[in-house]
Amino acid sequence: MAAGKILYAQSGGVSAVINATAAGVIETARDKGMVVYAARNGILGALREDLIDTTKEAKASIAALRHTPGGAFGSCRYKLKSLDENRAEYERLIEVFRAHDIRTFLYNGGNDSADTANKVSKIGHALGYDVNCIGVPKTIDNDLVVTDTCPGFGSVAKYTALSVREASLDVASMADTSTKVFVIEVMGRHAGWIAAAAGLAGSKAGDPPHVILFPENVFDPEAFLARVQTTVDKVGYCTVVASEGVKDAQGRFLAESGARDAFGHAQLGGVAPVLVALVREKLGFKCHWALPDYLQRSARHIASRTDVDQAYAVGKKAVEYAAEGLNAVMPVIVRVSDEPYKWTIEAAPLDKIANHEKKMPKNFMTKDGFGITAAARRYLAPLIQGELPPPFGEDGLPVYVSLRNTAVPKKLKKFKAAS
Amino acid sequence: MAAGKILYAQSGGVSAVINATAAGVIETARDKGMVVYAARNGILGALREDLIDTTKEAKASIAALRHTPGGAFGSCRYKLKSLDENRAEYERLIEVFRAHDIRTFLYNGGNDSADTANKVSKIGHALGYDVNCIGVPKTIDNDLVVTDTCPGFGSVAKYTALSVREASLDVASMADTSTKVFVIEVMGRHAGWIAAAAGLAGSKAGDPPHVILFPENVFDPEAFLARVQTTVDKVGYCTVVASEGVKDAQGRFLAESGARDAFGHAQLGGVAPVLVALVREKLGFKCHWALPDYLQRSARHIASRTDVDQAYAVGKKAVEYAAEGLNAVMPVIVRVSDEPYKWTIEAAPLDKIANHEKKMPKNFMTKDGFGITAAARRYLAPLIQGELPPPFGEDGLPVYVSLRNTAVPKKLKKFKAAS
Repeated sequence: MAAGKILYAQSGGVSAVINATAAGVIETARDKGMVVYAARNGILGALREDLIDTTKEAKASIAALRHTPGGAFGSCRYKLKSLDENRAEYERLIEVFRAHDIRTFLYNGGNDSADTANKVSKIGHALGYDVNCIGVPKTIDNDLVVTDTCPGFGSVAKYTALSVREASLDVASMADTSTKVFVIEVMGRHAGWIAAAAGLAGSKAGDPPHVILFPENVFDPEAFLARVQTTVDKVGYCTVVASEGVKDAQGRFLAESGARDAFGHAQLGGVAPVLVALVREKLGFKCHWALPDYLQRSARHIASRTDVDQAYAVGKKAVEYAAEGLNAVMPVIVRVSDEPYKWTIEAAPLDKIANHEKKMPKNFMTKDGFGITAAARRYLAPLIQGELPPPFGEDGLPVYVSLRNTAVPKKLKKFKAAS
Repeated sequence: MAAGKILYAQSGGVSAVINATAAGVIETARDKGMVVYAARNGILGALREDLIDTTKEAKASIAALRHTPGGAFGSCRYKLKSLDENRAEYERLIEVFRAHDIRTFLYNGGNDSADTANKVSKIGHALGYDVNCIGVPKTIDNDLVVTDTCPGFGSVAKYTALSVREASLDVASMADTSTKVFVIEVMGRHAGWIAAAAGLAGSKAGDPPHVILFPENVFDPEAFLARVQTTVDKVGYCTVVASEGVKDAQGRFLAESGARDAFGHAQLGGVAPVLVALVREKLGFKCHWALPDYLQRSARHIASRTDVDQAYAVGKKAVEYAAEGLNAVMPVIVRVSDEPYKWTIEAAPLDKIANHEKKMPKNFMTKDGFGITAAARRYLAPLIQGELPPPFGEDGLPVYVSLRNTAVPKKLKKFKAAS
């Protein structure tokens, strides 16, 4: 078994299942007699020496993390600069690790975090303090390379496909005299994985969604409007799924091209209203639009069981790797078969993952650019399979846990850069 | 048993449980050997003589309506004019009823529909064709009088409270360095019932939602900003629930006060972006916002069991009333006790319901206008209790039914006014 303690930190946008990973980490560590500290608010907590002693939490609380959305210890969007630009930050991390006998660093995030974990490992060694750094995959964007999928994605995918199916039934009921075009805007600034998953809502011609707009394609207003019109003619209504990252021919986000707020500022975070304005103006249809925003990535009540299982498994595996003394690796999900979906977990070197980005393959989008192919379905379908709802209380709402998050007494002086 | 057939029509905005009412109607009628026709696309189908023969549907399909959102026969927003203005429409209805031996008309909607059903009953009698008209309650707005609640509301209420709870966990995780203010816009143009239900997400001081904006109160920007600021100071973040119908001191919808779309039109359907623009400008906080739109009223996957049961029960009872020959009544839900929640169904005269609107009582809102009181909780809490999820397929998505909707052969000439 590895000596010293484990430090676990959550990084970047949280998800419906990142706490399931935390549960996998802590429960496995407890089984092995290892101590886990957590960094409060992600890497900033490590820099600030703001650490949480997870041994103070009840067993039931840790178990409840498996079904609780959000980030139980807090997360942050904070990317460490390069070693050349801010070596002090890396040295500070090592200082904190040394002060608290941290010998394993588990960094739960995307490709930036994989890069940071990789660098921390190297500088620790250079400073004479060896720390095993393990990246633990998490991102709803599904854009990590090597791994088959990223924990967090499957649940957003399921939420999105299900929401499209449900809302389209509503629209279809009323289309004769009311809304004919419904636009739902989903996350995905650079890659259209979530938009693609919406395609799982339908299985035969005429099923919603009828138009998917991917950030990988240049938005063509003429082609879009033509498709909306023919869909309304044929089906009676049209459901559109739009990635927030859809761009025009000039490479500008559509979301930034249109509306101004009450103060005259360009209004961000709204590709849907821009599309709706276009359809109203050019085709004259009554439109409605939805922006699920954080609801899509926190919807633990409708999480994918596959996703929850994988999230837990990568946490568990990360601790097993730590116990074996592995360094600079990430537990990645390896697909063994599509149907039935079988997967296993392997250790992949962080070098191969850090700073790469997995785009949607071209052959996942139909030629017209508005739909998904059979290849995409084969890949996506297993990721939303199964349900694992949280317990519901007598009040009719899910019972989610709040941890005590007891602080570890500080031993060092304040670190200015992270204030 | 009443002679003739039953005509069932869905009216106005659909919901997650209006089809449960349809299931209650059709299953009960089948048990009694009565035939149910449905009007395609609501009252327009009746005017157009566009009727559906529900006897052609399989038993399993009708049973599946109980867990399928949307309106299975189509609905519409079409209010019959007054008798003086358009007597021809009422006469046409009677003509269609007579042609198809319709002796019972079940109109499933809100207070407009109750009014229509009432009038149809009277004019039928005047024309020498007696038809028993029964209003069946449905509206997510929860604004019908006499009845304790309206089928459809409990499920939106549950969806909203749950979404606030989940998304707030996400916001809380990241608030240290990212979004501090999260605004969720909910339906409710005239009454704040749905916004009030969001208050069930929290139970103690500091729990989200921290600010609720009701359409019943005049929006006071100073008081709102002050409350957001103190909440961020105390809790670290602030979740705001805003009714789409929030108005300013001049009585204008806030949603119409701000943004212009790409074509310079006032952008409707967005009180949330107006609030977000205000908070960014005046307090400088990073904000996010969500607009669930149709997702909230079609979210059958997370429907309230109480709501589903009540929706089914009013459908069943409506047919029982029809069999007893009752006329111009509505089956309403009567609360017997709060805790445990016990309810029964009684027949109330349509006269007492038509054209009235149930507002939120003053004592349901806290004095500062930003929260709900214990009285509101006592009323609302039972309505979101229990779960009754739809069956999920191997594809990880709910299995919803599409009916055949076989048309009844027409016997009459076209009616011009309803084209």
